[in-house]
Amino acid sequence: MSEQTTPATQLADVGVIGMAVMGSSLARNMAHKGYATAIFNRTFAKTQEVIDNHGSEGTFIASEKIEDFVASLERPRRIVIMVQAGKGTDAVIDQLIPLLEAGDIIVDGGNSFYEDTIRREVKVREAGLHFVGCGISGGEVGALEGPSMMPGGTREAYESMGPILEKISAQYEGEPCCTYIGTDGAGHFVKMVHNGIEYADMQFIGEAYTLLKAAGLSNEQMADVFAEWNTGDLDSYLIEITSEVLRQVDARTGKALVDVIVDAAGMKGTGTWTVQSALKLGVPVNAISEAVFARAISSSPELREHAQSALEGPDGSLSVDDVKAFTDDIRQALWASKVVAYAQGLDEIRIAGQEYGWEIDVAAVAKIWRDGCIIRAKLLDRISNEYAANNLVTLLEAPSIKAELAKGQDAWRRVVTTAITAGVPVPGFSSSLAYYDQVRAPRLNASLTQGLRDYFGAHTYRRIDAEGAFHTLWSGDKSEVAGDAGNH
Amino acid sequence: MSEQTTPATQLADVGVIGMAVMGSSLARNMAHKGYATAIFNRTFAKTQEVIDNHGSEGTFIASEKIEDFVASLERPRRIVIMVQAGKGTDAVIDQLIPLLEAGDIIVDGGNSFYEDTIRREVKVREAGLHFVGCGISGGEVGALEGPSMMPGGTREAYESMGPILEKISAQYEGEPCCTYIGTDGAGHFVKMVHNGIEYADMQFIGEAYTLLKAAGLSNEQMADVFAEWNTGDLDSYLIEITSEVLRQVDARTGKALVDVIVDAAGMKGTGTWTVQSALKLGVPVNAISEAVFARAISSSPELREHAQSALEGPDGSLSVDDVKAFTDDIRQALWASKVVAYAQGLDEIRIAGQEYGWEIDVAAVAKIWRDGCIIRAKLLDRISNEYAANNLVTLLEAPSIKAELAKGQDAWRRVVTTAITAGVPVPGFSSSLAYYDQVRAPRLNASLTQGLRDYFGAHTYRRIDAEGAFHTLWSGDKSEVAGDAGNH
Repeated sequence: MSEQTTPATQLADVGVIGMAVMGSSLARNMAHKGYATAIFNRTFAKTQEVIDNHGSEGTFIASEKIEDFVASLERPRRIVIMVQAGKGTDAVIDQLIPLLEAGDIIVDGGNSFYEDTIRREVKVREAGLHFVGCGISGGEVGALEGPSMMPGGTREAYESMGPILEKISAQYEGEPCCTYIGTDGAGHFVKMVHNGIEYADMQFIGEAYTLLKAAGLSNEQMADVFAEWNTGDLDSYLIEITSEVLRQVDARTGKALVDVIVDAAGMKGTGTWTVQSALKLGVPVNAISEAVFARAISSSPELREHAQSALEGPDGSLSVDDVKAFTDDIRQALWASKVVAYAQGLDEIRIAGQEYGWEIDVAAVAKIWRDGCIIRAKLLDRISNEYAANNLVTLLEAPSIKAELAKGQDAWRRVVTTAITAGVPVPGFSSSLAYYDQVRAPRLNASLTQGLRDYFGAHTYRRIDAEGAFHTLWSGDKSEVAGDAGNH
Repeated sequence: MSEQTTPATQLADVGVIGMAVMGSSLARNMAHKGYATAIFNRTFAKTQEVIDNHGSEGTFIASEKIEDFVASLERPRRIVIMVQAGKGTDAVIDQLIPLLEAGDIIVDGGNSFYEDTIRREVKVREAGLHFVGCGISGGEVGALEGPSMMPGGTREAYESMGPILEKISAQYEGEPCCTYIGTDGAGHFVKMVHNGIEYADMQFIGEAYTLLKAAGLSNEQMADVFAEWNTGDLDSYLIEITSEVLRQVDARTGKALVDVIVDAAGMKGTGTWTVQSALKLGVPVNAISEAVFARAISSSPELREHAQSALEGPDGSLSVDDVKAFTDDIRQALWASKVVAYAQGLDEIRIAGQEYGWEIDVAAVAKIWRDGCIIRAKLLDRISNEYAANNLVTLLEAPSIKAELAKGQDAWRRVVTTAITAGVPVPGFSSSLAYYDQVRAPRLNASLTQGLRDYFGAHTYRRIDAEGAFHTLWSGDKSEVAGDAGNH
């Protein structure tokens, strides 16, 4: 039995399953763009709410039963699943498969782990259907008004589904913030790294905030600083809303809201996945890792309480003579650290693309992040252009980026050393700077590491002047022999 | 057909499968300790080698066929598998199960991932047998002369197998470096974290080396410094062999060996697993993470080449007036960073123990690391005593540790800021110091993070003055409402 706001004869162009905030917002976005949109939710009350509150915004075809929902769609059917990632997604896919026909398309718009997407794609494909794993960023407002969309799947599925996604996505200077990413898990992988970069971005903003606060600025003054930064190179959504959050006054206490919020950050897993996946791929993502750990530390009350009463050190206050100059140093440290985090994240995407055969166009990825998503920033336009114009191994070598890093690195070093001397924790800034100094160092300490590994585990080493693996007989006569890899 | 060095009537006390270097060394260790030791290898030639070269060292019972090997063992049979971790381990277990009888014990002495051990334990238990996942550290020499052993499994299995393991393990002042760790994967988990700490230890040593080198010390002078450090608080195997490696002269070139080894560190996965597992558990292990990433960076030649030609900055040389004072600062930075890495690793073990129901005694773990293993160090005796005497949430709060950290932290800060100013990468030192400053900070930047997350994703926040979750209507009238967790 199907309840409809339009004549029963009209078939829907596209359907959405899951009428929680993200799903209903995306369905409304589709309806606003002129698509007749079928909607379904496990409990009909939520669907009814959408019809009651937003039914007049466009053409919705609501069904109580999933069979009716499927029957209400034009073929090939295009169905977007917007339920909580995990078992719920699998359950909906299992329900849908027997109801669909060859060529129909299932899109998973949730925050699914890319390995799950790879697994699901095989299953759906074997049933003769198409599966698209589509990362969506932009929160509730983005889903409604135009998110950044990162779809992965077959080219064929994209030909059918792509036009709708491009239409409902955010538009940056007339270009949709949606592009075909690659096969199977490519879209969700890119969305995962997007979120990892978002963690780093927020950690850097937090460190800038901590430093400005330590230098004596009020919340109002800090809000002004971030608002000013938002007019320059740091122009971005997160900087913009940082200013707004800092300016927000708590109605109950009259204090700044930021000072009445508990100092413990939550997380939902995508940052953690980004680091775990990078470790699996062997890609260093130090800044993202520090951002994830910073949240973990903040949410470890027992550890913090015990450490606070036990550990001595500088009290974290700064005596700054020239606040304006210091503020500008922080701006440069923030920008440079941000660039490092982007370099690390884009490197993870590039390497994953090779590893999984996705052939990801990094310039195109940066392009669709220019609007709609949480990390949208002026910088991304430049990054996209740099990747398009140059065959970059790392973002850091991009001409306009390396020049600005060269100019800003003294300020970056001053900020980090000032913070360390004063006991202000800046794990993100310092880790990013250490990455910068590691990748540019002519020689690191790895030869010593190899010597030690050969000593205790016969792991062997390579020589700069000869091919092959070598081993020193450390507990013998200390002569060198050709080596096989050992273990310990 | 079984070839034997003893009368056919004698049954073996224990058996070892896998006659590569670790397996044969462990079998010889058992034989040296008076156990009649059955040995088997997939290809008999390796077994024959052991008999030919070491047959006179004790009682070996060699078999060509695995059936004969099993038949040569006293019941309950005690069989230690020493093959390359992974599919090989599963294959041997599958071969053994039909040949064994209720109560027999299979020990996996390889570097297995603890989740594999949990899976294998179930399988072997369901076949009516016991399974012990035993971490073994100490390399070839340790396996032969006494390693540190970290067995996990049932108490019942430990009653039968423990005495042998304790006998062949290293002894520290009369106490065996082997103790029952906990059920199923507990032993391999602890061994994994041991290796993660080892990565951090080596990274810190590498950073100390880089700084001493930047200050102009020769390899010979550095070898002297490490040798001297080995007489104090830093007394440890890795510091000792660092001195030896730095002193080693390459016979071909006459240069220091460390200068002809390729500057690219290898790894075999346990460090990576340590960080991945910590991320899963939500435990910050920043120092171990930086150590793993430092190896990854060193082994990324393309990234390094491009970054080296693109990036500007100080050249990494230091002009040090008082080399002796600077060297002593580095010693303190190294010790403090080391303590942080141990705190992080032991925290990971403590939390995993709670999560997996292993009830791990952290003091006992530190105790069996005092000798035999790669990270053996004077510090571990102190750590063991501190955990035994105090109910520690973090090692950092241990009375004797926090006092020394308080004394050493100025030097630590000097070293890190000096390095950063000079462009010398010290990711391990700086990350450890950032952890120290994070855990002791009365307030971090997490409240701002929560404000931002609530803004863009309606993730809600908690208040310091009221129970429950709250949400500000950021795109509405900016009033606060009771919140449900949202998503983006």
